[in-house]
Amino acid sequence: MEDLELVSIKQILVRKVNGLTSTPLSDLLSVEEPLEIRIVYGPRSERIQKNISVTMRTPGNDLELAIGFLFTEGIIPSYQDVTDAYHLDMKCSSQKQNIVQVELAENFMPQLQQSDRNFYTTSSCGVCGKGSIESIRTVSAFSNQDKPQLNLSTDILYELPGKLSAAQSGFAATGGIHASGLFTVKGDLVLLREDVGRHNALDKLIGKALLNDDLPLDRHILLLSGRASFELIQKAAMAGIAIVAAIGAPSSLAVELAAEFDITLLGFLKEDRFNIYNLSSRILIPTSYETIMISQTT
Amino acid sequence: MEDLELVSIKQILVRKVNGLTSTPLSDLLSVEEPLEIRIVYGPRSERIQKNISVTMRTPGNDLELAIGFLFTEGIIPSYQDVTDAYHLDMKCSSQKQNIVQVELAENFMPQLQQSDRNFYTTSSCGVCGKGSIESIRTVSAFSNQDKPQLNLSTDILYELPGKLSAAQSGFAATGGIHASGLFTVKGDLVLLREDVGRHNALDKLIGKALLNDDLPLDRHILLLSGRASFELIQKAAMAGIAIVAAIGAPSSLAVELAAEFDITLLGFLKEDRFNIYNLSSRILIPTSYETIMISQTT
Repeated sequence: MEDLELVSIKQILVRKVNGLTSTPLSDLLSVEEPLEIRIVYGPRSERIQKNISVTMRTPGNDLELAIGFLFTEGIIPSYQDVTDAYHLDMKCSSQKQNIVQVELAENFMPQLQQSDRNFYTTSSCGVCGKGSIESIRTVSAFSNQDKPQLNLSTDILYELPGKLSAAQSGFAATGGIHASGLFTVKGDLVLLREDVGRHNALDKLIGKALLNDDLPLDRHILLLSGRASFELIQKAAMAGIAIVAAIGAPSSLAVELAAEFDITLLGFLKEDRFNIYNLSSRILIPTSYETIMISQTT
Repeated sequence: MEDLELVSIKQILVRKVNGLTSTPLSDLLSVEEPLEIRIVYGPRSERIQKNISVTMRTPGNDLELAIGFLFTEGIIPSYQDVTDAYHLDMKCSSQKQNIVQVELAENFMPQLQQSDRNFYTTSSCGVCGKGSIESIRTVSAFSNQDKPQLNLSTDILYELPGKLSAAQSGFAATGGIHASGLFTVKGDLVLLREDVGRHNALDKLIGKALLNDDLPLDRHILLLSGRASFELIQKAAMAGIAIVAAIGAPSSLAVELAAEFDITLLGFLKEDRFNIYNLSSRILIPTSYETIMISQTT
């Protein structure tokens, strides 16, 4: 597909100031450009083109991003309704590929009320965290599906941040990019996507999994390079993900949403520790510190 | 105004896993809840209520957030068109205050096309970084105003991250919150706002400055606790800010937008170093390393 290295990183000249010295140096930036996502739908005789969203993203894996976004926002329920997806040429420059058009099947009607930015207010509860969670439930294909028991060991979890950074090394040079990594329960990295926007990195990952017909991702671990917000757990819930681990902190609503969707949520994952915020039944939690102390003294 | 400590942090019970041990412990989360921003406008006989946006934010300083958002998105050009702003009661719970209504003067017409999520596509250029920058120019009150020469010393800049963390200490306990800090050119912190969303932290800060009639902020330094994206530089440009320093990395489009709006942009600011991406004329850059070496050997 696209040449990631070329479009997602830009080389520039900066001045590095260090203590009392300064040096002009070449440095790398993560590229950020708008992407417009359009859909075309309706019967052949009267196809309708509709602009769904503009997101600021790092170019690369744009088709996955567009399809992942349409899916995680509840506008399309599966990939089988997509008949084609492609870049449209720009008016101002043939170099920039900032519009993706997704063609939907003639007999399929997209859930366009989901593309409304005021999506969360449609809940009967009004605008509150509980209402936001309920509105996800109504559109998620996997919300009522039982998730498996996994019996994951902590050793596997401790290794994930190192594996993510190692796989990221090319892009991490800019210090300014978020990553979403998908691992098997054995700790093998199967998908990695990066973006200046954390929600885009996850939409790219879920879009790719959708194209591969790999959903629901209920036997995988999703690792987020930063914090876990409501928006990211919402997307994970839409993809049926069973375990989400974040290297940063979760928000209150992320914890509530994860509990509601039976997602095991870990935060502050490091090479030797993490916090569990809810269901620990999928993870083999070690004997508690107190218990070890007692057994050592007897 | 609001009691920040109470609403912005939530205490929960988590299980902390460390190596081969685990302990249930009380921990703190940053609260994330939706905020719906509504405006009421038009002549007295036919006032119109319109829902502008729903953002996931940390409760606290909601009125500043709503007014800051309306201003940085170009929907209102100043505070003088605002006649009132208040929370509306929720349907489901009297505890949650998740709707802010902003009343606008009867003779004032808000720029509602700016509230369209597809804002960036209105540029004649189509959807590209350049078009996005141009569309900001058309709505910014301060885009053509000359910014002052400031002659800032690096010593003042090196102290800013420490001052921001020190002021943040209460909230930083959760490890999951973004901050925007406004400093004088002497390095004094004059405003600090925090939120789970980095754009909300900045909207709260700019909203407060707008309420104080302190705009344009062309003799201040804005310090961002994380990375500098297009969206944050857009908001800084709307507020006429002259210097933006980020503790994290900037994106390519953030650098382009800063250059276009004559904003001095610093990234990776630490206690003894930073990168400058464009106009260094406002900062007294130290003698370069090479020059020092030569003078020492002669």
